[in-house]
Amino acid sequence: MITEWNETTEQGITYPQGFRASGVRCGLKIEGKDLALLIADSPAVAAGVFTTNQVKASCVTWSQQVTRRGTARAIVCNAGNANACNGEQGDRDNARIAEIAAQQFGCAAEEVVVASTGVIGHLLPVERLEDGVPRAATRLGRSPEHDADVSRAIMTTDIRPKLVAVSCRSDAWEGALRFGGVCKGSGMIAPNMATMLCFLTTDVRISARLLQQALSRAVERTFNRVTVDGDTSTNDMCIALASGMGEYEVREHRAALADFTEALERVCRKLAREVARDGEGATKLVEVAVKGAGTEAGAAQIAKTIAESPLVKTALFGCDPNWGRILAAAGRAGVAFDPGQAYVALGGIPVFDRGRGLPFDAAAANCYLRQEEVSLLVDLRQGSEAAIAWTCDFSYDYVRINAEYHT
Amino acid sequence: MITEWNETTEQGITYPQGFRASGVRCGLKIEGKDLALLIADSPAVAAGVFTTNQVKASCVTWSQQVTRRGTARAIVCNAGNANACNGEQGDRDNARIAEIAAQQFGCAAEEVVVASTGVIGHLLPVERLEDGVPRAATRLGRSPEHDADVSRAIMTTDIRPKLVAVSCRSDAWEGALRFGGVCKGSGMIAPNMATMLCFLTTDVRISARLLQQALSRAVERTFNRVTVDGDTSTNDMCIALASGMGEYEVREHRAALADFTEALERVCRKLAREVARDGEGATKLVEVAVKGAGTEAGAAQIAKTIAESPLVKTALFGCDPNWGRILAAAGRAGVAFDPGQAYVALGGIPVFDRGRGLPFDAAAANCYLRQEEVSLLVDLRQGSEAAIAWTCDFSYDYVRINAEYHT
Repeated sequence: MITEWNETTEQGITYPQGFRASGVRCGLKIEGKDLALLIADSPAVAAGVFTTNQVKASCVTWSQQVTRRGTARAIVCNAGNANACNGEQGDRDNARIAEIAAQQFGCAAEEVVVASTGVIGHLLPVERLEDGVPRAATRLGRSPEHDADVSRAIMTTDIRPKLVAVSCRSDAWEGALRFGGVCKGSGMIAPNMATMLCFLTTDVRISARLLQQALSRAVERTFNRVTVDGDTSTNDMCIALASGMGEYEVREHRAALADFTEALERVCRKLAREVARDGEGATKLVEVAVKGAGTEAGAAQIAKTIAESPLVKTALFGCDPNWGRILAAAGRAGVAFDPGQAYVALGGIPVFDRGRGLPFDAAAANCYLRQEEVSLLVDLRQGSEAAIAWTCDFSYDYVRINAEYHT
Repeated sequence: MITEWNETTEQGITYPQGFRASGVRCGLKIEGKDLALLIADSPAVAAGVFTTNQVKASCVTWSQQVTRRGTARAIVCNAGNANACNGEQGDRDNARIAEIAAQQFGCAAEEVVVASTGVIGHLLPVERLEDGVPRAATRLGRSPEHDADVSRAIMTTDIRPKLVAVSCRSDAWEGALRFGGVCKGSGMIAPNMATMLCFLTTDVRISARLLQQALSRAVERTFNRVTVDGDTSTNDMCIALASGMGEYEVREHRAALADFTEALERVCRKLAREVARDGEGATKLVEVAVKGAGTEAGAAQIAKTIAESPLVKTALFGCDPNWGRILAAAGRAGVAFDPGQAYVALGGIPVFDRGRGLPFDAAAANCYLRQEEVSLLVDLRQGSEAAIAWTCDFSYDYVRINAEYHT
């Protein structure tokens, strides 16, 4: 069981021992920092989860190979150009980035994770990275300022930087275990930039296999349950690096592994919620909880379908307690349930029970929906499994952001 | 092969012999006609396709029973109240509507199809139908005016009425075969009204089994490939009635059945396109064609995923030739393909070929996307199967329509 949890958003990716980072401008975005470096002082254990899109950016296929080998020394991330759909030239440019970084750090190119986010189908101006990567390498350090630089350098036009640092203890291990994380999400004004990138560090000693197992599970229950518009990018990736410099080693020991996985999931959940909150045009964070389901997968499917429904999301923008849309979205999720048993509530306000609507105070419901964080609950009353999905509301600004830009 | 096809939107549901209809106001909508009746002069062969939503309105479960028995005498349709999520009271109210109609026509309640569309979770004011149905029964007739009344009475706040009448010939049968159709779709300003209703008539002699088979196939390839926002209503239904009063009988004869099915599909496609064109806030009709697929189901899945993508739809609203979004949506459809082989075009303008973007005239592309009907083509180059999906663009008005209304 996790017994202590200290979390801050004042620090980030270099909070665990064994990592240094920097963020600089190399001229890919119109303004601001757009190149981030992370270096592990010695080879780190690496795991990764990547987009399932059939159309994968060059950096995705490259970095999949890196994490499959289980160790990495560095991450290079550029914002402003996705280097996706650029054919073989894109693959060559991506490999070149890894080489430039490898030369700086005296490691093999195959130990460098590359991540890109930005416009699809524009060739990467590699010369800017030839200049930028060595410059970023001279600025590497370990401090809250370095963490903040990284969090800003990976943003496209996210409104808020998203970073977290955690120190935690469990009764299944001795000493404190540290996590650092940084993430970018879907608060993008230019289109084709809705990439989700997440870089996590920890000082735990762990095998690549166990780290991958924990990461896959954590991502499945957090980032994979965030939806802004249901569109999956060609460039999504979540990378975890473990330096092994901390006090504790996670092995097959069941309780310790379970607690490590839960801790990683909490870190991811924190960042996932920030991605939803910062969704394009969002005015509020929406949590959709489904309980009483026969399976967790079924609960998740229903929660995500509600979270993705444009009708639900526009109603939330309008602060309209329109429970019929919630129920209709649940009903089309492809999971069998009996509406005659189901229950729906907006925050603490019950609106539907066992097949029919309940009388409720519409003004109070409208007032509740004006909060910056709102939660919707559906209880299927058919089992004991539950799942949560996160989203934001659907506003005029979403349309403006995505329609007014011209390629 | 179909050898002759005469189509008009000046007539509709009573165009085939054996049907009379009327549309009147009974006071469920704020204004305008809101109650439609259709009566078959003698029991008609009936088939139906219904919403797959787990949450089904009372009229859906009732009418499923009617069409399962294979014959119907009448359809009663009200607009303005969905009679969904009203528990057992909703079921009783629905049965009462069927009884009122049955008394008028001297048939059994079990021979009356009931359809409702409107707000979810409000009890139906049955007394208005007690008054309205007999009044509608006195106005039954067979004329373009009656057809127009029906097409308006089933609208909620669709902008355009959607009706069609067809006379066609085939080398597989003798004489002309007639179809009439009326439909409502997703051009609704009040929420929870995004019901798709379609009523089709024909004078052909056909068994209930073959009619159901032809209808299921036609709906699968037409209405089921329309998406406005991906939200499936609790009240959707498509009903076909065959009077048997025409010149021709469709039996198991292979060519005749194939031609009848194709004719029915053409009728449905005509109406399906009108549903997409009249989508909430739509400024244009969008046709997404996917070809070169390994299976038709795969092609359809990709076409629907593109048609449903908010990023694609907002780009189309902005007349932005943003092919990266089309490809990214195709890639997340869950169907394997090789982007290195694929091809994408906007109308006649190629924009992507074999893994990378093509140079194209952005002004010409923008100009093309300003048309009232635009088509997107994706060729996977992996097989010979194809499918088409229809949608509309995603505008400020979609958000306004769905956010500004308060329950």
